[in-house]
Amino acid sequence: MTVTTENPRFNGVDTATLFATLDAVKGTNQIAEFQFRATNTWVSGTHNQSTIYGFHGAKQEMLHQATWTFDADHPAVLVGEDNGPTPTEYLLHALVSCLVSGLANIAAARSVTLTEVTTTVEGDIDLLGILGLSDDVRNGFEQIRVSFTVRGDDADKLKDVVEQSRRRSAVYDVLTNGVPVSIEVDAG
Amino acid sequence: MTVTTENPRFNGVDTATLFATLDAVKGTNQIAEFQFRATNTWVSGTHNQSTIYGFHGAKQEMLHQATWTFDADHPAVLVGEDNGPTPTEYLLHALVSCLVSGLANIAAARSVTLTEVTTTVEGDIDLLGILGLSDDVRNGFEQIRVSFTVRGDDADKLKDVVEQSRRRSAVYDVLTNGVPVSIEVDAG
Repeated sequence: MTVTTENPRFNGVDTATLFATLDAVKGTNQIAEFQFRATNTWVSGTHNQSTIYGFHGAKQEMLHQATWTFDADHPAVLVGEDNGPTPTEYLLHALVSCLVSGLANIAAARSVTLTEVTTTVEGDIDLLGILGLSDDVRNGFEQIRVSFTVRGDDADKLKDVVEQSRRRSAVYDVLTNGVPVSIEVDAG
Repeated sequence: MTVTTENPRFNGVDTATLFATLDAVKGTNQIAEFQFRATNTWVSGTHNQSTIYGFHGAKQEMLHQATWTFDADHPAVLVGEDNGPTPTEYLLHALVSCLVSGLANIAAARSVTLTEVTTTVEGDIDLLGILGLSDDVRNGFEQIRVSFTVRGDDADKLKDVVEQSRRRSAVYDVLTNGVPVSIEVDAG
């Protein structure tokens, strides 16, 4: 695959705009200050819905092209009604999708062709923690495993691209290094 | 709201089953060992899709009542095509939905009535990190803020329920304390 003026996309990535964006951010660092958001409404029991639409970035308020709503719930075995995935499954999706989006950008920037990227992610959790039945068990995942199958260019180049996606993933960073979370409550 | 044999649900939570589940887990700790999963397929550019369906728990392989697929992408301002939320927005949804599902269970277990729970979550991220333009900026969120509006019972009881949901949230735990993530690659 060759990048030309007529075909500026590489692996579906608009590389010309990607490099232009990098140059713009180098010139004005403030463009890179983003804020992402979600709004959640409790429905009943463990079922609740989040809405994702507006965000801040490039020095302005912005809107996605659509308003997305996602249901979360517990399955019946965890005393819910299974109206959607569990929150922890959304967390796994956030991790894997971040790694894959980054991988595609990095491969395009390096002119490394991708023909297939399929990935599985598994997280082990012992619910004795969140059920309050053991002080020795943490509430969250004890470990998460990600397995990539990547096809296209030379194997070493593909492995390097996966490694760089790990090194530059926003979600991998917060999951492995932690992030401060503050909570405010208006109750009554 | 009164819990009776005719109306065993409190805030939509089946409290009888909740307590029976706790008793079952106390008797056989292995029931609490769960594994959650997602499978991701790259589509094009920063667009990819995760599928969530099977999981392991209560000593058996289980399936959700439906197969759910979620699109992730970057918005146009981040050189994507906005086919879905960004991975970082899914992360915020995972956090808030975990806190709210837990809150509902805890309120039910304590017979604290909920009439409304609406929550916003914001995460600040400076993209100089993931763009590789500054060594001083981390890749992920610098901070996350969660704001609850909770209505129903006495304000102090509601605040206590929110605090307990924070103390027992799986996603809050991994975000604030970190979790080991391993990555394997089959490339070629």
